Amino acid sequence: MACRISELVLDCADAERLAAFWSEVLGYVELGREADGSIEIGPPDTGFGGPQPTLVLSPSSDPRTGKLPLHIDVNATDRDQDAELERLLALGARPADVGQTGTENWHVLADPEGNVFCLLHARLQHP
Amino acid sequence: MACRISELVLDCADAERLAAFWSEVLGYVELGREADGSIEIGPPDTGFGGPQPTLVLSPSSDPRTGKLPLHIDVNATDRDQDAELERLLALGARPADVGQTGTENWHVLADPEGNVFCLLHARLQHP
Repeated sequence: MACRISELVLDCADAERLAAFWSEVLGYVELGREADGSIEIGPPDTGFGGPQPTLVLSPSSDPRTGKLPLHIDVNATDRDQDAELERLLALGARPADVGQTGTENWHVLADPEGNVFCLLHARLQHP
Repeated sequence: MACRISELVLDCADAERLAAFWSEVLGYVELGREADGSIEIGPPDTGFGGPQPTLVLSPSSDPRTGKLPLHIDVNATDRDQDAELERLLALGARPADVGQTGTENWHVLADPEGNVFCLLHARLQHP
């Protein structure tokens, strides 16, 4: 192995808002802030450099067009998919339509800025 | 913790080509294929559901416009940044310009389909 995925960087309009949302979704905590307004969140136990990637919310005014060419899939760790879906919707996620048939065993959602992500079916253990 | 990042899904024109490239970059192996032509690659030791996310190369004809709103940062695990940069360029990565100043301690690269990712400075341990 020669490289490891350490961070995911998400351009956004409102880094505070998305950092709050994704911290709740992933159980992440704030790890640091940069002068450009970026906020990095990550696992409370391992932080940057651990096996799970951190997430950097990076303020940007670049235009957005539709579905992300790269998107995140998540799995619930401490409840089933239905219960986790309820929790995500209560946090501000919205159902999204990317052309799925509706018979899939995953849910397509959008975060508060419309970034599409999926909630998969399997329940995973906390690593 | 209630959700975990399990997969990253990258839309692409040529899933075979990108699966080969990213497998070399990350030391991943093929985990499976779907009827739609998607190829999933992941860590050889933990596969899907381990602490490191897998990567799904998903064939798509959606138009691409410029820089990805979500991108991956990677760190070398078994050599320094300069040596890893050489290796990535030999694999088919290309230097990319997203407006960086050139004084950053990371390198901005593009994969064979132009997806921008960054090689950060720190060398990380294999998790």
